[in-house]
Amino acid sequence: MYAGGRLLLMQLQVLLVAGTHGNEINGIWLFEQCEKSPFLINTHGIKTIKVIGNPEAKKAGTRYIDNDLNRSFLAESFSSMNSSNLEGVRANQLVRLYGNQGENPCQIVLDFHTTTASMGSCLVVYGRREADLALASLIQNRLGLPIYLHETDKKQTGFLVESWPCGLVIEIGPIGQGLLNSKIISQTKLILENFLEQIQQVKNLNLLFPEKLIIHRHIKSIDFPRDEEGHIDGYVHSLRQSKDWQPLKKNDELFYKLNGETIRFEEDESFIPVFINEAAYMEKNIAMSFTKRELWKFKPEWKQSLIDLIN
Amino acid sequence: MYAGGRLLLMQLQVLLVAGTHGNEINGIWLFEQCEKSPFLINTHGIKTIKVIGNPEAKKAGTRYIDNDLNRSFLAESFSSMNSSNLEGVRANQLVRLYGNQGENPCQIVLDFHTTTASMGSCLVVYGRREADLALASLIQNRLGLPIYLHETDKKQTGFLVESWPCGLVIEIGPIGQGLLNSKIISQTKLILENFLEQIQQVKNLNLLFPEKLIIHRHIKSIDFPRDEEGHIDGYVHSLRQSKDWQPLKKNDELFYKLNGETIRFEEDESFIPVFINEAAYMEKNIAMSFTKRELWKFKPEWKQSLIDLIN
Repeated sequence: MYAGGRLLLMQLQVLLVAGTHGNEINGIWLFEQCEKSPFLINTHGIKTIKVIGNPEAKKAGTRYIDNDLNRSFLAESFSSMNSSNLEGVRANQLVRLYGNQGENPCQIVLDFHTTTASMGSCLVVYGRREADLALASLIQNRLGLPIYLHETDKKQTGFLVESWPCGLVIEIGPIGQGLLNSKIISQTKLILENFLEQIQQVKNLNLLFPEKLIIHRHIKSIDFPRDEEGHIDGYVHSLRQSKDWQPLKKNDELFYKLNGETIRFEEDESFIPVFINEAAYMEKNIAMSFTKRELWKFKPEWKQSLIDLIN
Repeated sequence: MYAGGRLLLMQLQVLLVAGTHGNEINGIWLFEQCEKSPFLINTHGIKTIKVIGNPEAKKAGTRYIDNDLNRSFLAESFSSMNSSNLEGVRANQLVRLYGNQGENPCQIVLDFHTTTASMGSCLVVYGRREADLALASLIQNRLGLPIYLHETDKKQTGFLVESWPCGLVIEIGPIGQGLLNSKIISQTKLILENFLEQIQQVKNLNLLFPEKLIIHRHIKSIDFPRDEEGHIDGYVHSLRQSKDWQPLKKNDELFYKLNGETIRFEEDESFIPVFINEAAYMEKNIAMSFTKRELWKFKPEWKQSLIDLIN
């Protein structure tokens, strides 16, 4: 393949990102340990490149410096080379270095996050790209992880994984920001190794795709209750806290105010809430997101799309 | 009482501080709600002043801006009026405004904190000041909260409460930084109201001091395991995580390294660990602190010291 004056050897490379948010440190720590002891992770023969998404934010111990890096992968920032914010520049740099057409091209990206919500381990897929759905199916089939399909959310765009032909976010929680935890590190390592194993299986055309997959399709997000001045004046009800992935029905407790008022869920339709009380989403006016749980039939074209990308 | 050219009316005032660390937001939120609805908290007739310790750090969503405010109440920063760091200036300002000799004098301070460690609700006493021990005894007698006596730790000084004649820290956890939680808010409110009730009882000389109190006396803090370059290369063992207040004996699991090595506790003496894996202490090289659990006899002079201060 000849592109941009350079002969590119299309060897499969998987980009592994941790610390896209600087205060989600378990993945960062795992990667740093791997630098010292390369055999800590069983890569199943897959060539990987490990990067810290936002090293400046990591140093500062914050999610980001100027803007959320995981909302900075936008066409507008890529068109302007003189982006004035640190994360815009970093997004550009990551694509230039490791994008599919980059200096050291990667075809697949796995972006490791943690959350303060009780999400357990789960996958986030952005939109309905065939290769993403195929790869997510393989992992769900292997580890049983729930899949959150994020789409039709115009307020939230510019995710890192969208800049690669195939890419998934792995979310693990609950864990506080800036906190190392044995369980979270083990979960991160387990999922990473399973991803690389499954990618190796696809490379060997040793295919074990499921017939069906369970999708939690994003419907909408809801804000905290607020007073006239816009300040948050209620918090997630104790009966809703940590109940991610559990159905929310009409009249269920949603928020609580200190004056004793319980705010209930009043819609007729039932939803499955996710990312309940994620600390970083408060500034995005998101108390939780609502999804619909759906059973999807696995499509052969998804499989082909992933095979084409990998081989 | 005539002091510094002003006639001071010695009415008892209790200073209530939340957000001494800007990312410990549950107390801040409770105080903000009280601003809007003054009757949310039962003050038991005690006059209180509520302040946000570090409003700039709160805005930034971080523990502090230049230095930890709760290590900034030091003689050296008070002697220099042109302190170049934000927290030094703020410490000076708080004492000038609300100190015992301040513009709006307070005799007692309660400083509300949260922790990522599984400390439950507890009190921290700095040194062995009689009024502090008397007040802590009243709360332990009423709510059964453990008391952590922090002393003889030369690396950790300059705590806010030490600049008032009587002052205690309330620590509540586990809770991630920057996260509102119904349980933490309820615990904060309960403890605050019980403090004010007990202070009111002392004011009325309606005294219910216990005969004994249980103290967890600080012995030392230990660091995370580190490699030759000083980087953390092990984390708190899963069997030690969240086991605050539970005895640690010889050969118990302490840390774990990714290479499979378990680091055990090797001393012959047994300790009670506290603040296990507090996220903010990583930069202070503290993985946890060790205490000794002791039964102390309540001393009549403690009682008198508190009565003298309040009445």
